[in-house]
Order: sequence, then C-alpha cells, then structure tokens
Amino acid sequence: MKRKSQQRIGAAAPAPPLGALSLSTGKRARLWRLLYGHGPANGTLMILPLDQGLEHGPADFFPNPQALDPAYQVRLALEGGYSAIALGIGLAEKYMAEAAGRVPLVLKLNGKTNIPDDAEATSPLTATVEDAVRLGADAVGYTLYVGSPRQDAELREYGRVRRDCERFGMPLVLWSYPRGSAIDAKGGRLSLFAQDYAARVADEMGADVVKLHEPAADGEGTPEPYRSLAETRDERLRRVVRSAGRTLVLFSGGAKDDDAERVLQKVKLYMASGASGVMFGRNMWLRPMDEALALTRRVRSVLSRYPR
Amino acid sequence: MKRKSQQRIGAAAPAPPLGALSLSTGKRARLWRLLYGHGPANGTLMILPLDQGLEHGPADFFPNPQALDPAYQVRLALEGGYSAIALGIGLAEKYMAEAAGRVPLVLKLNGKTNIPDDAEATSPLTATVEDAVRLGADAVGYTLYVGSPRQDAELREYGRVRRDCERFGMPLVLWSYPRGSAIDAKGGRLSLFAQDYAARVADEMGADVVKLHEPAADGEGTPEPYRSLAETRDERLRRVVRSAGRTLVLFSGGAKDDDAERVLQKVKLYMASGASGVMFGRNMWLRPMDEALALTRRVRSVLSRYPR
Amino acid sequence: MKRKSQQRIGAAAPAPPLGALSLSTGKRARLWRLLYGHGPANGTLMILPLDQGLEHGPADFFPNPQALDPAYQVRLALEGGYSAIALGIGLAEKYMAEAAGRVPLVLKLNGKTNIPDDAEATSPLTATVEDAVRLGADAVGYTLYVGSPRQDAELREYGRVRRDCERFGMPLVLWSYPRGSAIDAKGGRLSLFAQDYAARVADEMGADVVKLHEPAADGEGTPEPYRSLAETRDERLRRVVRSAGRTLVLFSGGAKDDDAERVLQKVKLYMASGASGVMFGRNMWLRPMDEALALTRRVRSVLSRYPR
Amino acid sequence: MKRKSQQRIGAAAPAPPLGALSLSTGKRARLWRLLYGHGPANGTLMILPLDQGLEHGPADFFPNPQALDPAYQVRLALEGGYSAIALGIGLAEKYMAEAAGRVPLVLKLNGKTNIPDDAEATSPLTATVEDAVRLGADAVGYTLYVGSPRQDAELREYGRVRRDCERFGMPLVLWSYPRGSAIDAKGGRLSLFAQDYAARVADEMGADVVKLHEPAADGEGTPEPYRSLAETRDERLRRVVRSAGRTLVLFSGGAKDDDAERVLQKVKLYMASGASGVMFGRNMWLRPMDEALALTRRVRSVLSRYPR
Amino acid sequence: MKRKSQQRIGAAAPAPPLGALSLSTGKRARLWRLLYGHGPANGTLMILPLDQGLEHGPADFFPNPQALDPAYQVRLALEGGYSAIALGIGLAEKYMAEAAGRVPLVLKLNGKTNIPDDAEATSPLTATVEDAVRLGADAVGYTLYVGSPRQDAELREYGRVRRDCERFGMPLVLWSYPRGSAIDAKGGRLSLFAQDYAARVADEMGADVVKLHEPAADGEGTPEPYRSLAETRDERLRRVVRSAGRTLVLFSGGAKDDDAERVLQKVKLYMASGASGVMFGRNMWLRPMDEALALTRRVRSVLSRYPR
Repeated sequence: MKRKSQQRIGAAAPAPPLGALSLSTGKRARLWRLLYGHGPANGTLMILPLDQGLEHGPADFFPNPQALDPAYQVRLALEGGYSAIALGIGLAEKYMAEAAGRVPLVLKLNGKTNIPDDAEATSPLTATVEDAVRLGADAVGYTLYVGSPRQDAELREYGRVRRDCERFGMPLVLWSYPRGSAIDAKGGRLSLFAQDYAARVADEMGADVVKLHEPAADGEGTPEPYRSLAETRDERLRRVVRSAGRTLVLFSGGAKDDDAERVLQKVKLYMASGASGVMFGRNMWLRPMDEALALTRRVRSVLSRYPR
Repeated sequence: MKRKSQQRIGAAAPAPPLGALSLSTGKRARLWRLLYGHGPANGTLMILPLDQGLEHGPADFFPNPQALDPAYQVRLALEGGYSAIALGIGLAEKYMAEAAGRVPLVLKLNGKTNIPDDAEATSPLTATVEDAVRLGADAVGYTLYVGSPRQDAELREYGRVRRDCERFGMPLVLWSYPRGSAIDAKGGRLSLFAQDYAARVADEMGADVVKLHEPAADGEGTPEPYRSLAETRDERLRRVVRSAGRTLVLFSGGAKDDDAERVLQKVKLYMASGASGVMFGRNMWLRPMDEALALTRRVRSVLSRYPR
Repeated sequence: MKRKSQQRIGAAAPAPPLGALSLSTGKRARLWRLLYGHGPANGTLMILPLDQGLEHGPADFFPNPQALDPAYQVRLALEGGYSAIALGIGLAEKYMAEAAGRVPLVLKLNGKTNIPDDAEATSPLTATVEDAVRLGADAVGYTLYVGSPRQDAELREYGRVRRDCERFGMPLVLWSYPRGSAIDAKGGRLSLFAQDYAARVADEMGADVVKLHEPAADGEGTPEPYRSLAETRDERLRRVVRSAGRTLVLFSGGAKDDDAERVLQKVKLYMASGASGVMFGRNMWLRPMDEALALTRRVRSVLSRYPR
Repeated sequence: MKRKSQQRIGAAAPAPPLGALSLSTGKRARLWRLLYGHGPANGTLMILPLDQGLEHGPADFFPNPQALDPAYQVRLALEGGYSAIALGIGLAEKYMAEAAGRVPLVLKLNGKTNIPDDAEATSPLTATVEDAVRLGADAVGYTLYVGSPRQDAELREYGRVRRDCERFGMPLVLWSYPRGSAIDAKGGRLSLFAQDYAARVADEMGADVVKLHEPAADGEGTPEPYRSLAETRDERLRRVVRSAGRTLVLFSGGAKDDDAERVLQKVKLYMASGASGVMFGRNMWLRPMDEALALTRRVRSVLSRYPR
Repeated sequence: MKRKSQQRIGAAAPAPPLGALSLSTGKRARLWRLLYGHGPANGTLMILPLDQGLEHGPADFFPNPQALDPAYQVRLALEGGYSAIALGIGLAEKYMAEAAGRVPLVLKLNGKTNIPDDAEATSPLTATVEDAVRLGADAVGYTLYVGSPRQDAELREYGRVRRDCERFGMPLVLWSYPRGSAIDAKGGRLSLFAQDYAARVADEMGADVVKLHEPAADGEGTPEPYRSLAETRDERLRRVVRSAGRTLVLFSGGAKDDDAERVLQKVKLYMASGASGVMFGRNMWLRPMDEALALTRRVRSVLSRYPR
C-alpha cells in the first residue's frame, strides 16, 4: 500500500480525461478517486471484479479453491493496489468492512445465475444506488444485455439507475454485454458487430465507464457492413474504443489464461488501442496469491505507461 | 451564426401557427424559441437528429467515419444554424455542454437497438421530462410505434410523458412510426394508410410536433379505402399534413441520398405540402462538413420561403 | 343556442333520475349540467363523440372530408346544442378552447388504434381524471372491453379511474364494449348475450352512464339461455336497459346510415326502450353541416319527448 | 326487523369465537357487529351475496326476473335480517344508501366476468379497503383462485389487501376458490383435495372468514392420499372446517335447488360440521320474496341452534 | 422453559460468529436473541418451520392429524425450547399470541401452493418486513427459487425485501431452493451442483442465514466440473457450507424419516460439516408430542456440542 499512498499524494489531477467530460461535482469527485486516488493513479483503471459466483456459480473457483472465499479477492485488491474492487451487494456487505476506504468499491447493482439459458437474458436489479451511497462506494456497476429480446425492460430499469446516479453524483460503470437469441442469430456476442454496437450503446445511454470484451473477427452470421470488414485485431480494438466516444473503456479478461505473458500482452494491446484500463477477474484471482500479485504489478506497470 | 443572430433579433413572432394553438405559457415560450428564435426563425423547423447510433448501431456512420463522434453533429447543428439538435440522454449529457444555449436541444426520451426484430416493437423510456428540464432542453422527443401489438404499453407510457410535458411546459415532438407485425400485414410502415393513421394519432394524442415519413403509394396489402386511392405524391403528402391537424409536421429524410439536388427537391415538396419543416439526419451528417453546411444553407433557404 | 339558454334558465331540476341516485355533490353538479344545463336539458343526453380518428384511423372521415378537421365536430356540437362532446386528450387540448364552457366536454381517457387485431383487446389509459379536471370537463369516458382475455388488466385500470372519479366528483361514462376472442367464440360483440352482460357490468362496476350498442338477436354461437330467447328488437332493447339498472343508458349509432329517417327511427326506438339518450358520431358528423344540424334538431326533438 | 333489534339489544357478546382470536380493536368491533349485532346474532353468520351479475352475467337472474334489480336483494337482506349483504363497488354505491347501517355491508373488492375461460383465472381488484371504509362496510370480500397458474399475481395482490385490512381494522372474508388448469388436472374444483387445500390456504393467508364449497368425494384425478380416502359427506365437511383452523367457515349454496327442504338439510349439515354459517345467494334470491323470506327464517332458526 | 432461561441468563455472547460479521445494531440484536438467547443458545440454531400447509397442502399432516392444528407446532416450539418457529403471516397472526416473546418468530414472507407445476416456479410476497416488525419477529424468511426461468422477478422482489431488512435491522433467512425447468434439465434440485450454487447465491445476495438441502451426488444431467467430482457425503456437505461463506447454514430435514436414530445421525453429520444448525419440520411435528419432544432434546444435545 505504500506505493499507492505515494501516488495518491504525489498525483496532481491532469486535465484529460476528466477535464473533457461534463460531470457533476459528485461524479467528478468519485471518478477522481478511482482515476487518480487509487490504482495506477494516472487516469487509468485496474478493477478487480468478483461477481462470477453469482453469474456462473462456484464452479468458477474450482481452479483455485482459495478464491471461493471472497476475502481472498478483497485481500488481492488491497495488496495489489487496485483502482477498485467490483462486488455485488451481499459480498460488499459481508467482506468489505476490513478494506473500507482503503480500496474503492464498485457496487454491482444487478446480476443473475446462468442456470436458465440466455435467449431472453435480463439481469434484475438487486441493489440500489442508495445502497452504494450507504456503503461508501465510488461507483456502481450495471449489466445491460444489449440486443436482448427483453431490451425494453432492461433499458427502462437502466434508465432509472442512471437517474439515481445523477441524483447522487455516482459514476456508472456499464457492463455492456451483447446477449440473447437475436445476437446469437447475428453472429454471436463477441463479434465486432456486437461489441461495436455495445460500445456505442454505452455512450448513448450515458455510462461513464464501459466494460467490453475484445471483439473477434466477424463471421458468416454478422450483418453487413461488418461481415465484409477485414480488420486486424488492433483495428477492431481501436474501432470499439472510438465507438464508445467519451465513455472510458475497460476490457474484460475473460476465462483464465495460464500463460501470464499472454495475459500481459493483451493488456498492452488494449491500452495501446486507447482503452482506459482493464477489468480482469479470473485471470487474476484464479492464480495463487503470489503469482496474482506479481501479475498485478506487471499489469499496473503497463497501465502506468498510459497516463491520461 | 451571425445570420441567426440577426434573425433572432429582428423577428417579431407572427401570429400563426403559435397564435392558433392552445398552449400553456411554458410550451409557448419554448416553441417560440424553436420556431422564431433559432433556425430559419420564421415559424419553420430544421432539426438535426442523432439517435441512429442507438437505433441502428455504429454501422450508420460507416459512410462518413467523422460522424461517429457526436461532436461532429453538434458542430454541424451549431454552424449550420439549425432550429435544434435531437439527442438521447447520453449524448446530450456528454456532448452538449459546448453548445448549450447556442443551439436548442430536443431531448429524445426513448429508444432501443434494432437487434431483435420489430414484430412486437416497443421503445422504452430511458430519460424523463425532468432530465430535459435539467439539461435546458426546449422540447422532448418520443417514439411511438403506432399499431404495434404492444401499443397498450406504448400509449400508456406515452401518456405519462405527455402529462409530464404539461406539468413542465415542455413541447413534445412525436416520432410517430407505424411498426410491428400488424403494420407489416397491412401494407408496411411507409404506406399512405400507415403514415396517415400515424399523423392522426399524433393529433389525437396531443403531440405538439410530429415527425413522419413521406407516404408511399398504397399497394396490395393496404386496407380500403386506401388501396383504391390513386393519389399523386403531392396529394399524399398534403393528405397526411391535413390528418395531423394542429400538430406541426416534420418530414424525415430517411437513408442518405448522394444526390443533393434530389434531397433539396424533397424539402421543397414537403414544404409545399404544408409541412412545418424537416428532420434530416443521415442526409446531412453523412456528408463531409463543407458539403453538409452547403446543403444545410440551401435547405434553410427553401424553408425561409415558407414563413408561418 | 338561444333555445338552450332558455332551457338552462327555465329548467328546474326534476327529481328523477338524479334524485334517485346516490351521488356525491361533485358528481351531482356535473351530471346536472349535462342532463339539465345543456342539450335537451330534460334529463336526457345527446352526446357527440369523436374518437374514431384514433380508434379506426382517418379512413372514417373519407365520406365527409370536412370532418377530418376536429373543428368541424366542435362546431356541430356547439351549433347543434349537444349535451356534450366526447374527445380524447389531444383533440380536447387543441380544439376545445373556442368552445370551452359553451358545450360540456366528456374527456375520453383511454383508446387505441385498430391496427393489431382485437383477440386480446385492451385500451390503455392515455389521460387522467386530473386532466379532465384541468380542462373543465363535466365527465370522463372510459372504454372497457368486456370479456377480453385481458379483462384483469382492464378492470384493474378501470378501478383506479373510478376511484379518481370519486375523489374528484367526476361522472364516469363507460363505453362498455364486449370484445376479444372469447366474445367472438360466444356469438360476437353485438349479440343480446354480449350487450346484456356489458350493461350489467357497467352497473356492477359503478359507472354513472353506459354507452351500449343495440343488441342483435342471438345466433348459434351464443350461450343459453340467450340462444333460445326469441325476443323482438324492442324487447331486447328494454332488456339491456333494465340490466343496466341505475346506470343511465346511451345507445351508439354505429356506422353511418344515409337514410336520415331510419336514423331517427332508431332514436325513437331507443328512447322508448328507456334509454337516457344517444351518442351518435358518424351518423351526425359524416353529413354536411346543414344536414347534420337538421338531423340533430330532429333527434333533439325526439329526446324532448322523454323528460326524466 | 323487530326480532333482530331485540337480539341486538339483548345479546351479550359470548367469549367464543371472538375471544379466542387475536384481533385488533377495529377488526374485533366490526366482526362483533356481524356476529352478534346482526343476523342470528349468536356468533353465526348468514350472508346474502350478490356478485353473480358480474361473475356469471344477467343470465343468472332469468329464473326470477325481479332479482335482476339489486334493490330486490337489498330488500331481502333487510327484511330477512341477514348478518350482511355482500356486494361489489358499483352495487354498493348505487343500492345500499337506503339500507345503510340497517344491514351490514361486505364490500367485495375483486371480480371478473366468466366470458374468457378459467384456465389461468385471476380476479382483478376493482375496489379498495379504503372504499369499504368510506362506505361504512363491516368487512371486505376477496376472491382467491387457489392453485391458478397465476397464483403469484393473485397472492401478491391479496397480500396488499390483507395489509390494508390490518391498517384499517377491516375483517377479511376470503372466497377461497380452487380454480385453473392445474386444479382441473388434479380432480377439479369441488374435490375434497381442492376444498381442503383452499381451507388451509385461508388460514395460512390470514383471512378472518372463509367461504368454501361443500367438498365432493375425490375421484380418479385427485392426488393421494385424498384419492384413497373414503370419507362420508359429514367427514369431508368436518375435515375442511378443521383445515380452516381459526378461520370462520361459511359454506356456499351453489346453484338454486328448487326443493327448499333439501336446501335446509344442507344448512343443518354444514352447521353440524362446525361451520360458522352460510353464504347462500341464488338459493335465496331466485325465489319469490315470500318464499325467500320464509326459507330465510328457517335457515336462521337452524343457525340459532349453533351459538358460538 | 427452565433450562432455556438458565441458558439465557448464563450465556455470555461468544465472539464468533457474530463478532466476525458486519451487521447493523438491529440485526445484531435480533440475531443474538436467536443464537444466544433461545434454543441451544450457543451460537447454533434449531428452528421449527411450519409452512407446509401452504406449500404442500393439508396432506402433509395426514401422518399425524394433531399437527393440522398450528397450535401443535407452537406448543412443540415452546416446550422443545427451539431457537425459533418459522410461520407465514396467517399462522403468525392467529397462533403466536400465546407464545409471543417466549419463542422467537421467523416470519416467512412469501409462499405458494404446489398445485401448478414448478417449471416456472416463483414465490410471491404475501407479507412484508414491516409485518414482521409489527409482530415482534426476530427474523424474516424468504424463499428464492434459484435458477428459475423467472429468476429476474424473484431476485428483484428479493432485493426489495433485503433493503427493507437493512432499514429495519431485521435478519434475513433465505430458503435457497434450486427450482424450475432449467434446474431439472441440469440434474435436479438436490444435486451438489444445484445446492452449491444455491449456497453461493445466498452469500452473494446478502442473506444472513441460508436454509439448504443436503446435496446428493451429481449424476448424468449435472454440468461439469460437478459431474466428474466423486465426493463423499461429508465432503459434499462441507463444500456447500464453504460456498455459503459468511452466511450461516441450516440444513433442511425433508420428508419424515420414521427412524429417529437416522434423523439424529443426519444432524450430527450436518453439524460436523460446519453448519450452524437445522430447520427440521416434518421430522419433528409429524411425531406424537412425546416422541417429538424427546427427539428435540437429542437434537439439541448434538447442537450443544458445537458452540460457535
């Protein structure tokens, strides 16, 4: 924590990106804490998410049984000097007391199990922006299933959360996830078409930060003009970052990759594409604590090369 | 902007159409700003809409990649001297600060992606009239999918928006769009039958301004007596303007037409039919800035010949 | 208007039917205005409805293009000395200013297009009793699709409207319309079975006035004991009036009949059956103004023979 | 009315059953009026229901056309000295003024037509506990379709009514009616299985009084252990009364039986089984007034032998 | 009750588990009463549930007809010195007055019948946290159908209950029950996969106590990695207790086992796995009172060996 303290003290808030954004005082204060008060503290974000126990079930922790105890991730976020940890209401209530104030909290407001299929995916609100205020969180997280047949319910609920965020000056991190039968019919959730649309939706819907997945090349099922695009991995990443406009982009890490070099390579690629940071969960906390901390330091060092 | 300033100062508010309408003081004040304080400032409207990123995805911007950045449209609205720019909540929050007060805002309150199909189309509310007040908007926009199988939910939500508009003195611009399986079964969304019904719905539902599409000739699938009508393009346009009654009509531009003369021809036709103006998006901002500004000036000059 | 003025001044409020009804002071005051302050002013009602533009589309106005402009109907209501004009919120806001106070308003609170089919018909609320108060209306109108598969949503919403009517002392006119797949399967919407049930529902649900259609003879599809009834036209009419109990009955005119004598014959029949009046729309405003006013005078003269 | 007055004055409130129940002061006061202030005034209940016009349509009144006028039932309740009359909101508003205070009112809060089928039966709320308070009612009635596929909506709405009853001290009479496709698949609504479950649901859900139907012997379709039970009519009745626990049981009369002796025999059987009374509608008001009053006196005399 | 009194007085509140939990003062006070003020009073819980009459119908009481009267279970809870009795609103209102304060109440807030099938299971709220406060309850119970196709409605409603619990300082006991067509398709509700997920959901959703079923070995239908696990009964139990994290685990008893030794064996197994107690209903109250009390004493003696 020593290193982070120094950063916090030393770091003067540079103008971009906060300077370029229209933000209320409350949002600005909390975003400043995330961007310049913690983590790399240079305008980039390194967030540790833990909602997989709800979203995927405890099976996700099998590769590293220690990670079943949420105290493990809280300790990792604390010792690794993360910008924030993202937790749902139950874990935040039960495991954050010891870390309160030392590592910022992104309170994830909605979630669901993956037991029923995702054809008509929708993620119900289980906590409120007011809960986030009560818990001293510095942002809330919300999953939007972009393109789901139930998008009307999703967008309506999202809209209410957004208004509460305005009311309380709470930054909003959008998990912008293409999902549902119509997305599957149009090439799947990871296509450039899907991720690019998801990025734009985040900007249109007023998110402050968006979490996206790295877009894959578009295949047969994808609509034109995407199907005919033949962009490189770099170009695809830059495209979705551009589509997100003034919304800060975080890329997701996805399933665990045992090869730490490859993980680091991804981080470099993402940052070079204009992303503001990463939100890697399983790639971090599925490693033993020593390895996880070591990889965290290396990720942090990449981010430190991209001050904003 | 010089020309607009002169207009603003010089223009005394003529009686029609505002004089003929029953309006609260708040609505009257805001409508006056749109009709006589900005744009052609002669009682006509030239509104630049930007909701295609949400409604159609970023693919819409491929023909002019600069337009992917909403700052492009804001700049066009400003330099082109538009009556207003129409934006959803996210874009309004993030991109309007620089133009606030200089170009009026129509805050679009609902919207959706086009990923699921439109058989049961419904457009969820993602912002409120109160958001519009907070952002200093001069009107709100609402899309109503006329004839959708879910019209009951649509009309109910619309009704709540209308009441908030009464409460806050906020003009309501209705995107009155025939849509859904029943419309498809009765000849499609662009038929005269569909557009004529949509025009009347706007008047019946208490909209102040309605955005319509140019009606096509009715074909096989259209119900009588429309199917047997054999009206000219002019007659069809005049018919829907008449059906809109005391609701001011704006015509939509639809997909981009590369031929600027043809675009201008359409504007002339629309204005001659009694419309109060146009809301052209892609036909404007998919052109390079110089071309867009040039075409804007010519559209404006057409509108200036139809003072109201 | 001279004749009406005389009536208004001269007419002392006779005891029945108002005397026999349990009514709050507010409802009593407004019903008095409708029954004794305007129209025939003898306890009968002659209401001019205009919601067909929303319910059926502008096609309904094709036989008399002048009627497309709602100002036409407002003028007819005014010059014809109607008891009231029934309009939805949009038309009331836009066209009633000139007639305010001179002809009472029944604000129709719900409505829909006829584009999707009516198998699961439901009519959404688009205005409120508070809107009616604000507009100085003397009653509200509500369409209930009796027997629709979605009757639970309909009755629930109706119940809320009824409570608001109690709260504001606003009379409630129920368009009690059998509708939906179950009605179709049981002999259709115009059968005596259907209209008789609709009449009772109005009384059970607490309407003050009910609008019904003339019941047809029951056919094959109608349930017993109706199927075996062999009542005359007169008997059927008297039956539904009796089933409406203490709810005042108005009969609808339906589609336009070119033969004015036949229209008048219907009015006589309805009044003789115990109805409190008629709500004829297309049979009135689809005629040229002179003919419409002439027919109106004759209808009024029939009603004047049935003081209540 | 003389006899009732004497009872009211003479009758000291015996301890059971009220003494054994946990009740708020308001509920106790109103239940006392029903049990000891009116009707047999000995802790039993004789309630005259009239909701068949809504639930079944006017066809129910064909055997006795006089009964079509709700004033008939109000007069019967008054002259017959009933414990209460049960009416929906419309009839209570329009027909109870003359009897107010002389015969207690049970305001039936929900109801529906029987036009659509009952596979997914649900009975919407059309009035509120507050309406009951305003009308001076001594209890509210609520129909719960036990076991309907839409039981979640039913139970949720019932729960809100129950809470309002707590808030206002209003006794709650539950029409606990097994209904819907799942009940049909398990032996139908009148089986002992269905009625026994319905009785328990009333106790579990906090009703004060429950209206049940006499259970039939279980047949093929009924689940075990009911299918193998071979209980007598008496045993079945006693079983459902026991299952209702501390909820007072009223049995329904069902369709009209022309044989008055058989009707009386049923009343005796029900009271001997431990019921607190009967709620017979068609068996009473489908008889001419003299016969109805005579039968009422005989029913009352049976109840008077079962003081509680 | 003598023994419990002594415990209450003598027992100093040991630090774990309450000391380790982040709890508001209100929750802490009520949990203390359950864990150290009643029952074994050593940090373990022995709760007697009675909601089977609603959830399964009166058939559940056939083996011991005395148990049909809820007074039987209340007496058992009182004489057996249980930590609490869990009842729905109706039974709590009607049967708890005599035991109020002497045995704590867990007010079960939702419930349903088992008449429709469970493919889309959802348990509607029929009482509120405020009801629990009014009745002096020390916790509320809520059934969540984990993995049901209607999980969005379930989680949303649960979220509102959780917030009310925060507001009132009311502990929340979650009946975390895998249920519905998707669970059936993935190996059924009792598999280790299903119970392990249910345990984690309780921790993620912020329950204070969770009621689980003993997990069975995973079979064919279960997803990987569970399908390939070959854990012993002990290991499975310990796994789900670990997955519940900081949520106290109670195991359910399920259907009645006539062999009391086997029941006791289960209790030992559960406690040895780290559970905080048991919630056995039918295994207790389906026995005659003497046997039930004797078994209760033996269960209590097992729990007394696991102070926390």
